[in-house]
Amino acid sequence: MQTWETMHWADGCLEILDQTLLPDQIEYIKCRDYNTVCQAIRRLSVRGAPAIGAAAAYGLVLGAAALQTDDGREFIAGVERIAGDLVATRPTAVNLQWAVDRMLRVLPHSIGDGIGDSIGDTIGDSPAAVKEKLLAEAQAIYREDLEGNRRMGQFGAELIPPEAAILTHCNAGALATAGIGTALGVIRAAHQAGKKISVYADETRPLLQGARLTAWEMRQEGIPVTLITDNMAGYLMARGMADLVIVGADRIAANGDVANKIGTYGVAVLAKEHGLPFYVAAPLSTIDFNLSSGRDIPIEERDAAEVTGFAGRMVAPEGVNVWNPAFDVTPARLVTAIITDRGVVYPPYSESLALLRANSESLKRR
Amino acid sequence: MQTWETMHWADGCLEILDQTLLPDQIEYIKCRDYNTVCQAIRRLSVRGAPAIGAAAAYGLVLGAAALQTDDGREFIAGVERIAGDLVATRPTAVNLQWAVDRMLRVLPHSIGDGIGDSIGDTIGDSPAAVKEKLLAEAQAIYREDLEGNRRMGQFGAELIPPEAAILTHCNAGALATAGIGTALGVIRAAHQAGKKISVYADETRPLLQGARLTAWEMRQEGIPVTLITDNMAGYLMARGMADLVIVGADRIAANGDVANKIGTYGVAVLAKEHGLPFYVAAPLSTIDFNLSSGRDIPIEERDAAEVTGFAGRMVAPEGVNVWNPAFDVTPARLVTAIITDRGVVYPPYSESLALLRANSESLKRR
Repeated sequence: MQTWETMHWADGCLEILDQTLLPDQIEYIKCRDYNTVCQAIRRLSVRGAPAIGAAAAYGLVLGAAALQTDDGREFIAGVERIAGDLVATRPTAVNLQWAVDRMLRVLPHSIGDGIGDSIGDTIGDSPAAVKEKLLAEAQAIYREDLEGNRRMGQFGAELIPPEAAILTHCNAGALATAGIGTALGVIRAAHQAGKKISVYADETRPLLQGARLTAWEMRQEGIPVTLITDNMAGYLMARGMADLVIVGADRIAANGDVANKIGTYGVAVLAKEHGLPFYVAAPLSTIDFNLSSGRDIPIEERDAAEVTGFAGRMVAPEGVNVWNPAFDVTPARLVTAIITDRGVVYPPYSESLALLRANSESLKRR
Repeated sequence: MQTWETMHWADGCLEILDQTLLPDQIEYIKCRDYNTVCQAIRRLSVRGAPAIGAAAAYGLVLGAAALQTDDGREFIAGVERIAGDLVATRPTAVNLQWAVDRMLRVLPHSIGDGIGDSIGDTIGDSPAAVKEKLLAEAQAIYREDLEGNRRMGQFGAELIPPEAAILTHCNAGALATAGIGTALGVIRAAHQAGKKISVYADETRPLLQGARLTAWEMRQEGIPVTLITDNMAGYLMARGMADLVIVGADRIAANGDVANKIGTYGVAVLAKEHGLPFYVAAPLSTIDFNLSSGRDIPIEERDAAEVTGFAGRMVAPEGVNVWNPAFDVTPARLVTAIITDRGVVYPPYSESLALLRANSESLKRR
């Protein structure tokens, strides 16, 4: 039984589980303003593409709520500035941009729409009314992610054999989403369907999301989990100890190239070398149809201190040069299938992903 | 200028640089008995296949020196017991076994040889005389490793282009040997030959020999070094940032399969995927001609706490299951060339390594 939530909205306050303290402490950061949300995203208190999308949506609610103006134009400008701040916190996960864009669509489209040209002239478009709409939209994003996780789990579980040792990298779990997780959601669903699942968790340097978060989630769920360092994945496969790989994604280009936590690419190459399926689980909101390939995905580079030490413990010689990309790009040719909340797609991804989007939009229109 | 030595023998005492404290502190463990040497090997205060071979040789000198008996049979039995203890400290690096075997050959071969059947009846074979021979042999092993490193550096440097970014894993440096190192010896030689060398050092979890030792050695030498986490090697290659890989070895089977620090195999697979040369540098003493393939190399599994923690700080949930193999095996097909102290060999290794040994033995006989 899961006794915690990645985030929780109540009475104008977004409580964010501080994942930097896990697994030692379960503590929530109370965000009553959007800057606290920005900080929580930047310092990875909340992380995982879908989770930071939802957190940013609530962040926009908090930011908008604090705008005191009754002037529609000023209000919209304020919301857009806050949106920009939220999007700027982290560059790679597209769900952040996606969630904020979706929130902004709640705003009246043009000045002539009401709110822009006069103050509260129609009740529906007053700043107060827009604030309510923003909250409703954030809650919809959160709820849809939760439901999407469940569907993804069902779709993905069908791909898992009755007995399987599954390698995963980083944490694409409940902690990375509003629901049961993407990659770990599939694992949970397969486990709940009675399949005999065991998990190998890459520790995932530098920030050890695998050791701290995935191992913790799996143990809470009673799913057998074995922790390894990232560089053991190859030998694990060579010894025949893993049957397949499932990971999450931070952004997927229209051709199926996948940006995910640094090290994912290496695992994908190893899976290919050993003939193992390599699955990516991510909601449709992670697919960036504006980018034709992974080459164009911006890759965040983070502070050297993450690599030279951990949790304040310095291990490398002072002043050593460091390269610290937080993500890498796995080319579509290494991806066996992408498990989405709208179904499982296979290569060629340019076609299958486009079709998935078209079907999903026609569903929404109905 | 190197102001430290991996180990130093003087006046009946082996001083071992405690590598567990690097790069923070340069402290030596004074070993006046062989048990202290065993402990130093087991806890990785001294590590690296050639270095633990030399340390074990000196350990045997210390152990033999402390034997009080004048009875030849008892003395030999005592030395053999000590040899067994030293060999048992770590199972994978064959240089340990090799050095101890070589030391034992100093002992008279059969009881009829003198020392075995009576007490000090010939001066040359008295326990006291054998103790001196053991010291001379240990010093020869140390000196030959030092010279072997230099030759390996020369042979290997010829393989390095005038300008090269070199990825290495773990520490196969001066700290792993008596001399300039194996893999890092090649890098040093290429650098000193005026080539424009830069190094990427995998941090090498769990014990971070890359971050703590390789980065430190390279900085002391003034060779540009950039530290990365192990899981960044793939993306580094995909970005075209590395030109070749050089690593050391703990044991090489007769067919060229290479046991080396965990993670080496993954790097080799990545090198193949990107068409990069993958070189292994190791002295002839690392080749185990008794093993036909890497399948038979014993792989040490170490304590879970190495993986659940980082530099002494626990990061994973308490009690989590861990798999912690200290080494892996890279199949010969992934190895571009093996750089030895007797020359560079290429596939097929079963033939080229056998020829190398034959040539080396005929040299010794001359």
